[in-house]
Amino acid sequence: MGAIIMKKEGLRMKITVWNEFAHEKTDEAVKAIYPDGIHETVAAFLRENGFDVKTATLEMPEHGLTEEVLANTDVLFWWGHMRHGDVQDEIVERVYKRVMEGMGMVVLHSGHASKIFTKLMGTDSGLLKWRESGDKEILWVVDPGHPIVEGIGENIIIEHEETYGEHFIIPEPDELVLISWFSGGEVFRSGCCYKRGKGKIFYFRPGHESFPVYHDKKVQRLLCNAAKWAYTPAPQNILYGHYPVSILDQK
Amino acid sequence: MGAIIMKKEGLRMKITVWNEFAHEKTDEAVKAIYPDGIHETVAAFLRENGFDVKTATLEMPEHGLTEEVLANTDVLFWWGHMRHGDVQDEIVERVYKRVMEGMGMVVLHSGHASKIFTKLMGTDSGLLKWRESGDKEILWVVDPGHPIVEGIGENIIIEHEETYGEHFIIPEPDELVLISWFSGGEVFRSGCCYKRGKGKIFYFRPGHESFPVYHDKKVQRLLCNAAKWAYTPAPQNILYGHYPVSILDQK
Amino acid sequence: MGAIIMKKEGLRMKITVWNEFAHEKTDEAVKAIYPDGIHETVAAFLRENGFDVKTATLEMPEHGLTEEVLANTDVLFWWGHMRHGDVQDEIVERVYKRVMEGMGMVVLHSGHASKIFTKLMGTDSGLLKWRESGDKEILWVVDPGHPIVEGIGENIIIEHEETYGEHFIIPEPDELVLISWFSGGEVFRSGCCYKRGKGKIFYFRPGHESFPVYHDKKVQRLLCNAAKWAYTPAPQNILYGHYPVSILDQK
Amino acid sequence: MGAIIMKKEGLRMKITVWNEFAHEKTDEAVKAIYPDGIHETVAAFLRENGFDVKTATLEMPEHGLTEEVLANTDVLFWWGHMRHGDVQDEIVERVYKRVMEGMGMVVLHSGHASKIFTKLMGTDSGLLKWRESGDKEILWVVDPGHPIVEGIGENIIIEHEETYGEHFIIPEPDELVLISWFSGGEVFRSGCCYKRGKGKIFYFRPGHESFPVYHDKKVQRLLCNAAKWAYTPAPQNILYGHYPVSILDQK
Repeated sequence: MGAIIMKKEGLRMKITVWNEFAHEKTDEAVKAIYPDGIHETVAAFLRENGFDVKTATLEMPEHGLTEEVLANTDVLFWWGHMRHGDVQDEIVERVYKRVMEGMGMVVLHSGHASKIFTKLMGTDSGLLKWRESGDKEILWVVDPGHPIVEGIGENIIIEHEETYGEHFIIPEPDELVLISWFSGGEVFRSGCCYKRGKGKIFYFRPGHESFPVYHDKKVQRLLCNAAKWAYTPAPQNILYGHYPVSILDQK
Repeated sequence: MGAIIMKKEGLRMKITVWNEFAHEKTDEAVKAIYPDGIHETVAAFLRENGFDVKTATLEMPEHGLTEEVLANTDVLFWWGHMRHGDVQDEIVERVYKRVMEGMGMVVLHSGHASKIFTKLMGTDSGLLKWRESGDKEILWVVDPGHPIVEGIGENIIIEHEETYGEHFIIPEPDELVLISWFSGGEVFRSGCCYKRGKGKIFYFRPGHESFPVYHDKKVQRLLCNAAKWAYTPAPQNILYGHYPVSILDQK
Repeated sequence: MGAIIMKKEGLRMKITVWNEFAHEKTDEAVKAIYPDGIHETVAAFLRENGFDVKTATLEMPEHGLTEEVLANTDVLFWWGHMRHGDVQDEIVERVYKRVMEGMGMVVLHSGHASKIFTKLMGTDSGLLKWRESGDKEILWVVDPGHPIVEGIGENIIIEHEETYGEHFIIPEPDELVLISWFSGGEVFRSGCCYKRGKGKIFYFRPGHESFPVYHDKKVQRLLCNAAKWAYTPAPQNILYGHYPVSILDQK
Repeated sequence: MGAIIMKKEGLRMKITVWNEFAHEKTDEAVKAIYPDGIHETVAAFLRENGFDVKTATLEMPEHGLTEEVLANTDVLFWWGHMRHGDVQDEIVERVYKRVMEGMGMVVLHSGHASKIFTKLMGTDSGLLKWRESGDKEILWVVDPGHPIVEGIGENIIIEHEETYGEHFIIPEPDELVLISWFSGGEVFRSGCCYKRGKGKIFYFRPGHESFPVYHDKKVQRLLCNAAKWAYTPAPQNILYGHYPVSILDQK
């Protein structure tokens, strides 16, 4: 797969990859897979594909998501799991506000239960079935013309993964791109597109910390595609609120 | 239009109509239209159509929405406007939890900016354009096979209403049933269906307190239909969370 | 599961179950499962649940779908497989016209490749992967509040079935209710809701002629629910075409 | 608005603009607006924006849509009105097959009643209300983050247009981008996105032959955006049909 050219009128998309960065510090097996943290692995392949990428983690001041950082972020990647509750509500509001304005998000794996994803969904999106039994996962493409699966082929096979099973309490996706099969008998809506305000959100299921999922070349290609899809280059200015003179009477 | 028979295996749907009940106490013009409050007008036509209806208002203890009341509510109607901020977060959470479990909601007019609707939408759903100039509104049916518009015909004409204009920041509706035309040049997505968890939500735009909208027979018929549509008679029990034995290994 | 009461203001829903009725005449194994044809098995459980049901088959004059029969059909069930090509185009047009007017359809299993379903989808809906290896199928409910899965629980397990695999060329369903898991590694969108004109269409995957799927009690319950869902009791009269006087100038 | 750079790894998108080219030959008023035909006006602004554009018309052999032309078309624009019936069914099938494979389409104005659009919709999409009274049309953006409306602002105002009114018999759009307001009191879903097979389709309402709609700069910008959106650069190869060895048993 060749590099994806992301220039648009001279500008490069700016991505921030956020990670709670907890498992990688305390669990040797996870550290072996992601020595510098999941965020650095994700950032690295995004950079190789031509994106302008920064990283941010929970323990940085303001979780690394200052007003300035978010103002300079076109698409935010989010990985979190055991420390969802430690993300400050103020920062969640700040991210949410940027999504309304047009910032895209790619929410990874256990990020389904993060405060920000739950808030954007309008449901208890933390609710699903799960099991850590190293099942085989096959992600089937159900929307082969979708830009997020360009170059992926018919499926992605992951030899061992944590299992998620339906029912997953999410709103009906605006577009459903991938459905997972698990060897234990479960299925899952694993690639889900949403729009909220002027921002686009893609949820991608795989990526348990115990398995080297983000080293998979097809997964990397798909996440590059997702970043492109989630990008709104020039969000429009909209007037909201009191609008005393009707459009017919405006000059 | 004949009465709608709502019995299902001997049971009647239970509706609670919630209203902040503020304008009707302080504004004589509003009081003249809704002497006992908007909630009592809505409750009255629902009762005439065979539903089992209770009412609740902001100033009641727990806003009238105790655990017991909500446990006995199949569909909750919601009208609020100037006092959205006074609704306690705890009660909002309680309503939300019931929607996840399968309680339906019919959100009326300025209820678009209520805490509960915004939470369910996952957007700043308070944002839209508005103007109080007594425009004519024509609501056009764009989904004539939908049960919510059964018996309505092609449109509903309201001689004078508050104007709402796009862009309205809501997620793309699961089903869009009505689009409004306003004489000042605006359009609005005025009948929007959503599912959140096991619950169904219908947003219906008309119903400014200054105009006798809920006395209109077509509006009444549509809101009876909406109550039926939003009703999930027997929400299924779903297991969420850790699911250690795969379905293939279960006996 | 108790009987479903389908009376509405004194009327009962009228269903016609259509079957090509070919395999059951020539294949002894199929005959053993459906001695009077798949249509009579489906008709029988629908009748037990209170519906007013007729049947029709390919070899009847006009395939049993005369203008009069269709005019008296609220919901049409359709099972076909080896003789799709023998259905006359004129009859397909007639069924299509009734769907536009508000007749519902429940399309079963290999009916996905029928002329009428393909026409309604606007895609080559015959295209999918298939294999007759007697895989286990688990249909998972992904929309537990949907009326079609009322009383079904979390899943339906079928010990042996023909396998269908994605990609299935259908438009993104208006509502996706069921996803199938197969023991061979495939997934499939098995319960799909569509609206076309004023009519509603439900596609249900299971029901290969070699397995006793329509004798399964959960499948029967689901198909009764689907019939109710697909029913539009009083389709509205809509004016189409030249509309010389604007609505504002009409008296 | 600057030129939109459409190069992707060295390739330019190939567009074919098809027009029945009938009104422009017989009606002097139309000829004055589009002296070389609507197709040449559309082709010209697409070329100015960097696309590789050809044109084709009804009277050319095979309507100008040979196998070779279509094989070299990424996105097909379609304008037709009085001669829909003269388009050969064989050519309609050929276009349809290419959409299934991933060719995009932009269907303009009265193209809603063309054989190809009706076939792709699965409805009698010719049905709507219409009136030629020179109403004012305001197209409101209802999905401001959508790439098709990038750079458009909140609305497009067209001083005089043919009126189309709901109900328009189309399937619920996958994405609804624009809603029109007409001075006579009607509304219309004027910017509708669909996916069929691997192809994407955008329906855009404006463009009656009697008004200079395709000379409008905002309309031109929107149609350039639509071409980009409808483009699937590398449609995936999918295996359909008998799939005798399950994916788990494949090497």
